[in-house]
Amino acid sequence: MMIVGVAGGTGSGKTTFAKALSKLVPTQAVIITQDSYYASFSELSFEERVKINYDHPDSFEDSLLIEHLKTLRRGESIEVPVYDFAAYTRSQDVIKVEPVPIVIVEGILVLANPELRRLFDLKIFVDNDPDVRVLRRLIRDVKERGRTLDSVQTQYLKTVKPMHEAYVEPSKKYADLIVPEGGFNTVALTTVAALLKEYLRQRG
Amino acid sequence: MMIVGVAGGTGSGKTTFAKALSKLVPTQAVIITQDSYYASFSELSFEERVKINYDHPDSFEDSLLIEHLKTLRRGESIEVPVYDFAAYTRSQDVIKVEPVPIVIVEGILVLANPELRRLFDLKIFVDNDPDVRVLRRLIRDVKERGRTLDSVQTQYLKTVKPMHEAYVEPSKKYADLIVPEGGFNTVALTTVAALLKEYLRQRG
Repeated sequence: MMIVGVAGGTGSGKTTFAKALSKLVPTQAVIITQDSYYASFSELSFEERVKINYDHPDSFEDSLLIEHLKTLRRGESIEVPVYDFAAYTRSQDVIKVEPVPIVIVEGILVLANPELRRLFDLKIFVDNDPDVRVLRRLIRDVKERGRTLDSVQTQYLKTVKPMHEAYVEPSKKYADLIVPEGGFNTVALTTVAALLKEYLRQRG
Repeated sequence: MMIVGVAGGTGSGKTTFAKALSKLVPTQAVIITQDSYYASFSELSFEERVKINYDHPDSFEDSLLIEHLKTLRRGESIEVPVYDFAAYTRSQDVIKVEPVPIVIVEGILVLANPELRRLFDLKIFVDNDPDVRVLRRLIRDVKERGRTLDSVQTQYLKTVKPMHEAYVEPSKKYADLIVPEGGFNTVALTTVAALLKEYLRQRG
């Protein structure tokens, strides 16, 4: 099994890159999103959960993600939690994921945790200018998530940007490859896909 | 023919990366160094030539390098000039280079010229922290080129650093892939080599 970690800031294009990469090795790859591993914080009330800084590493249950990746590597299936973004907690649903040859793990902080990134055979950081990233995030949050311009600005300045600078950007240092422009960088996609295909071919 | 451009600042590890990459596709690749294409400035006296800023883009005869790459692509051999670093001008010698499937072009400014970088099928920028780079350059220049500590410092602050910031660093924007740590980044090397091998296999 080859595990590829794809990190990058909000709006960097990491999700687009992960999806485009998985399509280049169809049926052989699965994407696991770090967002699925938001901690449930079920001991807290809804009001308390809403106030949590969801851009901080402590908001993710990395230990479960690590356990799941080790389980997949042993050739066993896992049950990925489904996060309920409206209720700010983990739902009762799970998605069963079978062990496939290539596992792509994407999320803003997947390179920030030493134990997590040690599991990756290839560590990618998708990079983009902060102005490009904030524009993409703003348009996505307004159009797809019904947020107001003001609420996006407040959240961005209050948690997204400081957490990016404190945890996401420094984790770039651990990347094997930095991919500018993310999913629209077809040359980078083709290059990384060549490695995955070589792995699949040698695996037979 | 696949042409790979490898740029990066002084001491970044770009030459190590280019050499290690070429060794992964033995007999199929050749490295062309931008340093070979320093302009001869034969109309100037030795004293005048010594004073030239050799970190500025105008010190390279990019037009000849571009012409040579186009010649190789047409399947014809070229005669790469040999630069005489002691005389600060081009020597009478040339090195004949035959067209091979993979041509690696490495140098600080190979991504800075739009006409040159348009010839590259893959554009790589080897990146490293400025403090790591200046240490490597200083040790190399003192141990291998007989320079004094003071002369390295003067040259670095007077031309190398300002030219890096004005021309080399901004050219990172045009890279398809950014490789941290250069030649010691074996995962990046293996990934890029997978693309070259795929190209060679498809080429038959």
